[in-house]
Amino acid sequence: MAKEIERKFLVSGDEWKDLAEAGTRLTQAYIMGGPDRSLRVRIFNDQSARLTIKIGTAAMTRDEYEYDIPIDDAREMAEHATGVIIDKTRYRLPDGDFVWEIDVFHGAHAGLIVAEVELPDEDTQPAFPEWLGREVTGDNRYLNHTLSTTGGVPEETE
Amino acid sequence: MAKEIERKFLVSGDEWKDLAEAGTRLTQAYIMGGPDRSLRVRIFNDQSARLTIKIGTAAMTRDEYEYDIPIDDAREMAEHATGVIIDKTRYRLPDGDFVWEIDVFHGAHAGLIVAEVELPDEDTQPAFPEWLGREVTGDNRYLNHTLSTTGGVPEETE
Repeated sequence: MAKEIERKFLVSGDEWKDLAEAGTRLTQAYIMGGPDRSLRVRIFNDQSARLTIKIGTAAMTRDEYEYDIPIDDAREMAEHATGVIIDKTRYRLPDGDFVWEIDVFHGAHAGLIVAEVELPDEDTQPAFPEWLGREVTGDNRYLNHTLSTTGGVPEETE
Repeated sequence: MAKEIERKFLVSGDEWKDLAEAGTRLTQAYIMGGPDRSLRVRIFNDQSARLTIKIGTAAMTRDEYEYDIPIDDAREMAEHATGVIIDKTRYRLPDGDFVWEIDVFHGAHAGLIVAEVELPDEDTQPAFPEWLGREVTGDNRYLNHTLSTTGGVPEETE
């Protein structure tokens, strides 16, 4: 189990594109869950798969359990997804002690771009690149789980 | 993924006790789920652990995915169980082409004893030992998931 502490921002500029590493295509399906927990499967570049269980309500801190699973299991489970399957390309951008993860959404959520940074504790402040937009940490509309139930892009994103 | 086809009975006699192999203590916690799916963790003899995802509504046939996980993960997740943790000893009793599994419940469900047999298809008929009681296949009150939400023993068991 790992504690997950992260901050999340919208992305307003393009400058990150030249700095980021090659992207990974992620297909992500929520299989079950509730307000304080979820089970999802993710398929990476159509080659491998992982199951993730998240438990907890804190906006920035949750318990997270991840296990590699056979890709065929993930594909079958994804057929029983609750809501919309999330399809995005994730780019890594190392920046000093931190790594930004930039998610460019496709399909039902095309137009949405979100940047996240994982932090060692809740007091640590990373340097904020100029291409960052508004912070949306704790804004439930930008949780992947919420996106999976709605489709479309939250109204204030543009 | 394996299809799970099984029939379930109450147990009315004691004769199985001399025939069964040594039992395995199972601690079982449901972490999340709904009417047609569930995620549970099980701890075996306080030594190993497994995560199980079941999807599907048919009384006798469901999709089932099982993965071994670290026992510490299972113990942590069990602290977030929905409802009552199930504590039982499972005995195996091979009988011809079939294996009966007899669950003797402890704790919140003490007094309940249930026998299950897994079948290759829905038409196969096993031999029915004399210690079997009433068939409860498809009776939702005897699903482990239902037991985890209620505690106690369903009224007609005795």
